[in-house]
Amino acid sequence: MSIDACVFCDIVNGSGPAHLVYSDDDVVAFLDRAPIARGHTLVVPRRHSAGLSDLDPALGTPLLSVAQRVADAMKGTEFGAHGINLALNDGRAAMQTVFHTHVHVVPRRSGDKLSFAKGFLTRRPGDLAETAAQLRELIGVQR
Amino acid sequence: MSIDACVFCDIVNGSGPAHLVYSDDDVVAFLDRAPIARGHTLVVPRRHSAGLSDLDPALGTPLLSVAQRVADAMKGTEFGAHGINLALNDGRAAMQTVFHTHVHVVPRRSGDKLSFAKGFLTRRPGDLAETAAQLRELIGVQR
Repeated sequence: MSIDACVFCDIVNGSGPAHLVYSDDDVVAFLDRAPIARGHTLVVPRRHSAGLSDLDPALGTPLLSVAQRVADAMKGTEFGAHGINLALNDGRAAMQTVFHTHVHVVPRRSGDKLSFAKGFLTRRPGDLAETAAQLRELIGVQR
Repeated sequence: MSIDACVFCDIVNGSGPAHLVYSDDDVVAFLDRAPIARGHTLVVPRRHSAGLSDLDPALGTPLLSVAQRVADAMKGTEFGAHGINLALNDGRAAMQTVFHTHVHVVPRRSGDKLSFAKGFLTRRPGDLAETAAQLRELIGVQR
């Protein structure tokens, strides 16, 4: 897929729709359109890379830093997350579906193992606009 | 858990047993003792942190860089990985079991979804020593 046809590049450039959660010079964070759990966020480097191998390792720190901020916004707050899974899926065999590298931030609750597994099969949008607004406020970013 | 009683700190310090895959000033990588798939590796910062929130974000780049090297060693080689999942599990609710922050590098094959899911339940050691030796050679590190 060329950069021109990348839906995440469109979001990064502001030409594609997304429920933004956070944005800075290196990284944009927005809600997954088919969340496994409420608050499921994608942290995406602005510069296009397809997968893990062509991702600039220097982006590790900005990606981790923003993932931490999103995670902290969901722990000990009304999101009620007891834990967080960060995941980077590289390749179709690893369940990557959009070929612009991204980190999933997935809130977890104690004992949700079954619903978590089921969530992979029955992903639904839910209240994305409200969820994004809540996260932005908790992260302290107005945009 | 105190740092004194941390099994990953023991490995980092060289006092605990592990099948090492890679080591530098910031990061150590070794095989998961109960792999989900052959080659399943943990990338661990030398400096102790319990989870995601207290991990120094500056470690994002060294962690990502080493995860990429391990992943590349398993793609297009005798490990036969078609894809890779990176995962950082933060908290018991997110399936974290050792409270020294670590990144899982899990090789995936096309169509292994079922065995991958099953692998979470039936994790077994397998041939760790041989697997680690192979990975070290592919990464180009002798140790």
